Amino acid sequence: MEKLYEGKAKILYTTEDPEILLTQFKDDATAFNALKRGTIQGKGEINCAISSALFQWLGTKGITTHFIDQPAPTQMRVRAVKIIPLEVVVRNIAAGSLCRQTGLPEGKILPFPLVEFYLKNDALGDPLLTRDRLLILELATAEQLEQLQTLAQQINQYLREFFATCQITLVDFKLEFGLDSQGKLLLADEISPDTCRLWDQQKNDPQERVLDKDRFRRDLGEVESAYQQVQQRVLAQLGIEAT
Amino acid sequence: MEKLYEGKAKILYTTEDPEILLTQFKDDATAFNALKRGTIQGKGEINCAISSALFQWLGTKGITTHFIDQPAPTQMRVRAVKIIPLEVVVRNIAAGSLCRQTGLPEGKILPFPLVEFYLKNDALGDPLLTRDRLLILELATAEQLEQLQTLAQQINQYLREFFATCQITLVDFKLEFGLDSQGKLLLADEISPDTCRLWDQQKNDPQERVLDKDRFRRDLGEVESAYQQVQQRVLAQLGIEAT
Repeated sequence: MEKLYEGKAKILYTTEDPEILLTQFKDDATAFNALKRGTIQGKGEINCAISSALFQWLGTKGITTHFIDQPAPTQMRVRAVKIIPLEVVVRNIAAGSLCRQTGLPEGKILPFPLVEFYLKNDALGDPLLTRDRLLILELATAEQLEQLQTLAQQINQYLREFFATCQITLVDFKLEFGLDSQGKLLLADEISPDTCRLWDQQKNDPQERVLDKDRFRRDLGEVESAYQQVQQRVLAQLGIEAT
Repeated sequence: MEKLYEGKAKILYTTEDPEILLTQFKDDATAFNALKRGTIQGKGEINCAISSALFQWLGTKGITTHFIDQPAPTQMRVRAVKIIPLEVVVRNIAAGSLCRQTGLPEGKILPFPLVEFYLKNDALGDPLLTRDRLLILELATAEQLEQLQTLAQQINQYLREFFATCQITLVDFKLEFGLDSQGKLLLADEISPDTCRLWDQQKNDPQERVLDKDRFRRDLGEVESAYQQVQQRVLAQLGIEAT
């Protein structure tokens, strides 16, 4: 096994099969383009468990993901893909950079789910892309863009309903996609409290309800227990026993 | 006459007719969201002359503008409109914020004219808007957006060809639109070296060729003479004698 790439939250290793990679989830946490760094105890295991469960569940709904299996608590075997350097963000409720950039108040329910594309480029600060900028930068073809848009909307519909059954509001989330050796589009990366904004429907306080990385970003405390809370509810709902 | 609004480059006065306003062009120059301030000698007169000439000319092409007449060298009488708080930017060649935000090299000819919408909001730093953000912020209806897009493309085609006959390359420019009392969409604001990037086709040097506010923004010197150069070529081309 050779280290292929080390990101902020995961390490990617090659395996004996060139079509398969191994992802190692880390406890490291970063925010604000890595200006803020820290550790969330147990995050690697929690995010690996949640992501594995959700990828498998989305697979049963017909969404093709890179997930193969979970050989160890912090490890996921995945199909090797060429990652499209786009963060595909779906928003149901205004929060984060959408509010900072447009002045929309946090918590405003959007009139329709907003699919947005950001360039994955730390040096440029992951800028928001319009459809035309994306095409000019040749990050995807018009057809792929259409496909990404449709997939993101579908995944949002599934995840939003699923999280609602966990008494959790899916505020927004970030997806990444990749192309396999046949050029097939797969959902990749992870789906976890690192990449979703999740609000506890059992709480009304705008700080107490936060069950995601905003607890770390905004120093709200009880970060680990929020992540555990999400893991417990998601796995229980899917009938998976926690390791 | 009552001062209705003082902007960075113009003052707007009421007139005895509520449907008509008077615009006074100033020599004041600002850049980078007014962090940089200065004066460009004679700019008010030059920009008023260029804008008046181009608005009249666009009128002959069927583009409805707010221009009525030019009662004095720095004054333009215009139809009173409710300005849509959007900066409509059309780009033929990559420059400025497009390059800073996406990493595209300055001077890259774009594969198609890029129409972009920015929120006119100094406190938020005039952020780039996607089509969906614009609709969610209710800044325009989907129909108005379509109309703005089409108008911006048409105006670009006219202006680009016109400036080419002046040996000037129209790199990009910013438009503002307003709605009159009947709800009709009019081209408003100004068209000048303050709002266009204009490169002299008679020069190759990337600094020498600049004939617009970038000379002020980037401290390139000879700002006044660049503005005069544009005025002379535009008016000569249209057969208008300079005042």
